[in-house]
Amino acid sequence: MHKPVTAEIISIGDELLYGQILDTNSKWLSEEMDKIGVRVTRKTTVGDDPQAMNRAYEAASREVDIVLMTGGLGPTKDDLTKHVLADFFNASIKLFPEALEDLRNFFESRGKELTPTNQSQANLPSNCTYIKNAVGTAPGMWFEENGVVWMSMPGVPHEMRYLMENAVIPKIKEKFKLPVIYHKLIKTIGIGESWLSDKISVWEEQLPSHIRLAYLPSLGEVKLRLTAFGESLQTLAEEVKEQTIKLEPLISEYIYGYDTDSIASSLGHELIQRKENLAIAESCTGGYLTHVVTSIPGSSNYYNGSIVPYHNDFKEQLLGVNPNTLSTKGAVSEETVIEMSKQVRLKFNATYGLATSGIAGPGGGTTEKPVGLVWIACHDGKNCRTRKLQLTKDRLINIQLTSTASLNLLRETILQNTK
Amino acid sequence: MHKPVTAEIISIGDELLYGQILDTNSKWLSEEMDKIGVRVTRKTTVGDDPQAMNRAYEAASREVDIVLMTGGLGPTKDDLTKHVLADFFNASIKLFPEALEDLRNFFESRGKELTPTNQSQANLPSNCTYIKNAVGTAPGMWFEENGVVWMSMPGVPHEMRYLMENAVIPKIKEKFKLPVIYHKLIKTIGIGESWLSDKISVWEEQLPSHIRLAYLPSLGEVKLRLTAFGESLQTLAEEVKEQTIKLEPLISEYIYGYDTDSIASSLGHELIQRKENLAIAESCTGGYLTHVVTSIPGSSNYYNGSIVPYHNDFKEQLLGVNPNTLSTKGAVSEETVIEMSKQVRLKFNATYGLATSGIAGPGGGTTEKPVGLVWIACHDGKNCRTRKLQLTKDRLINIQLTSTASLNLLRETILQNTK
Repeated sequence: MHKPVTAEIISIGDELLYGQILDTNSKWLSEEMDKIGVRVTRKTTVGDDPQAMNRAYEAASREVDIVLMTGGLGPTKDDLTKHVLADFFNASIKLFPEALEDLRNFFESRGKELTPTNQSQANLPSNCTYIKNAVGTAPGMWFEENGVVWMSMPGVPHEMRYLMENAVIPKIKEKFKLPVIYHKLIKTIGIGESWLSDKISVWEEQLPSHIRLAYLPSLGEVKLRLTAFGESLQTLAEEVKEQTIKLEPLISEYIYGYDTDSIASSLGHELIQRKENLAIAESCTGGYLTHVVTSIPGSSNYYNGSIVPYHNDFKEQLLGVNPNTLSTKGAVSEETVIEMSKQVRLKFNATYGLATSGIAGPGGGTTEKPVGLVWIACHDGKNCRTRKLQLTKDRLINIQLTSTASLNLLRETILQNTK
Repeated sequence: MHKPVTAEIISIGDELLYGQILDTNSKWLSEEMDKIGVRVTRKTTVGDDPQAMNRAYEAASREVDIVLMTGGLGPTKDDLTKHVLADFFNASIKLFPEALEDLRNFFESRGKELTPTNQSQANLPSNCTYIKNAVGTAPGMWFEENGVVWMSMPGVPHEMRYLMENAVIPKIKEKFKLPVIYHKLIKTIGIGESWLSDKISVWEEQLPSHIRLAYLPSLGEVKLRLTAFGESLQTLAEEVKEQTIKLEPLISEYIYGYDTDSIASSLGHELIQRKENLAIAESCTGGYLTHVVTSIPGSSNYYNGSIVPYHNDFKEQLLGVNPNTLSTKGAVSEETVIEMSKQVRLKFNATYGLATSGIAGPGGGTTEKPVGLVWIACHDGKNCRTRKLQLTKDRLINIQLTSTASLNLLRETILQNTK
């Protein structure tokens, strides 16, 4: 296996250090590099500060083959990048007539005047290759110095993406012999990271060294990521397939999907296949469970509707929960969620009714029913599967965990009906 | 003014370099440091690679006062941080009995068994101060070496935030003499950044140099942040107060709140004061608007409930929308949202009825009613205020923008009724 081609992403801008902007550029760049087999080994964010920028350039020049830089290329004063780069490369700043011509056309086509401030954007480090930015005014700059490729791009996301897609990625593919990387995500629900790890540790030990495993936990879910490095995409895909076939029986009851699947999209797919559909009655999740379901494009094909009866009155009037159940067992009880799931299923004429009721917090808890106590139910017309959850003190986390657990309850119900 | 206290944020995890996870942690950490007057001078992201981690630690140790590290602390094999840190500090790994006790309690309270894998999470570098993580199993680790403070936290966002809020920020405030910074957020809705800027530019010009203004736009909202630097918090608070008093008349109709207010919390406060309440009928927002309202603790005091009739059948059957309106005007029409808001208000016996109907996308658009077309309505029993929105091609952004615009419509209705 040849030495991997490596890259560093350097993001420039005070607004990133102050936390005023979420850096979505570097995630996108990472994904694109990953796709073509370039290994990103570090990301660095510095402010609009020549010293810090220089330190970042120097560190990068010693360690990687490709340096992708974003930010600091607008027409205003705080944009230093090209001057700092020119100094770093012992180059001068000179006018690039082709860049000026492109700027002139850019402004003309928009019926705007080319101001002196904008004209200065055609002045670039003398050692750079000018890369045209057809969707903005800050040019791209490509450098090759001492075997390292440097690319400087504006921080505006769509301009950066334009330059990457139209110039940088093709040029990188041309310049470097890239290895092949293959990723597979296996998505599990209803089991914690350490339990999962205990179940698959023997399998994990026998993985060949060119296939790496990572655990990616999120609220209520754990994703397993297999990454294989090699020469042929087909071979890697086959090798990973072989490994996943060995893995699956160990944790089959927890796997809901692969790669870009979410629990909601995976259930949606299943419901469409089965020509079945879903209705939801939410109390403590207050609309969030419905949102997770409807965030999937095309969910109207299997999702009928929801009722969120936030008061007991409406649990009775609109959902038809028995007043006796509410008064004797309380809203947060197995009996109440059973009735809620049963009734909402009928109201919306659905195959499945899902229901949640609990104390999301931070207030409203008692000794008997503390904050974080939640009951969930899934009714399929014949049977009702319920679960009691004891969650956290945090309202939003409780809402999210309950939604995930409810979708898992639906998944289990469908699995049960399939057997 | 004394030398600023500086910090570096080091994020650890292959998943960040591969672009599989968007790094929201470092943005949040940046904001928190900014609030307490610590200047973040660099952010570095490295993979699960001891050499790269070591290089990052070494670089940080030479340059900053505080190093905040996230990631690489779960119970599974790919989590190296604590071993690399121990090596870096020439420390050993030892059992912290207090950490083991906390782990045991954590698992016991959830009725789960403490596995050997989880037990090992109580083994920490011998030179660290153990920091209890009450919301997860990966402990926090605080180090002080050669005048630099190091804090290692898990990458799970809510665990990291818990540790920061409950331990790290108080300890940093105690250890360092931080400059005095006073922040004031003025929150606006229903006006874009450049229009806002035009309205307040004269006021902005006259701000004294020690008070800085930043525009923080998010979906459908713009926050104005005033940051004042000085010696006395009281003086700064008074000076900022003076400035906001001058600012408010310029944009009063767009200001909905201050500081930690959200549009939903601010409306909730208003509804409680007025002893009024709210019901919601959601079509295209599919539960999200309800979620935004119910994410506020205590929302059961003013929020009655919602119906999400995802199909026309249920708009008729459960919400009582006239079948003629649906067949002649369509579900996405002013007439339909008016009826939806009117009916849901009656069903839930509420002061206000809010309704949304639109084409969230990506599918379902026509030439006449393209993706992104949305109608919203707010009914107060006498009058109905409606608005037509033409949004984007992105489903999730359309859902969020519609929810924000709907809450703004409720705000305008309440304002109108107050006059």
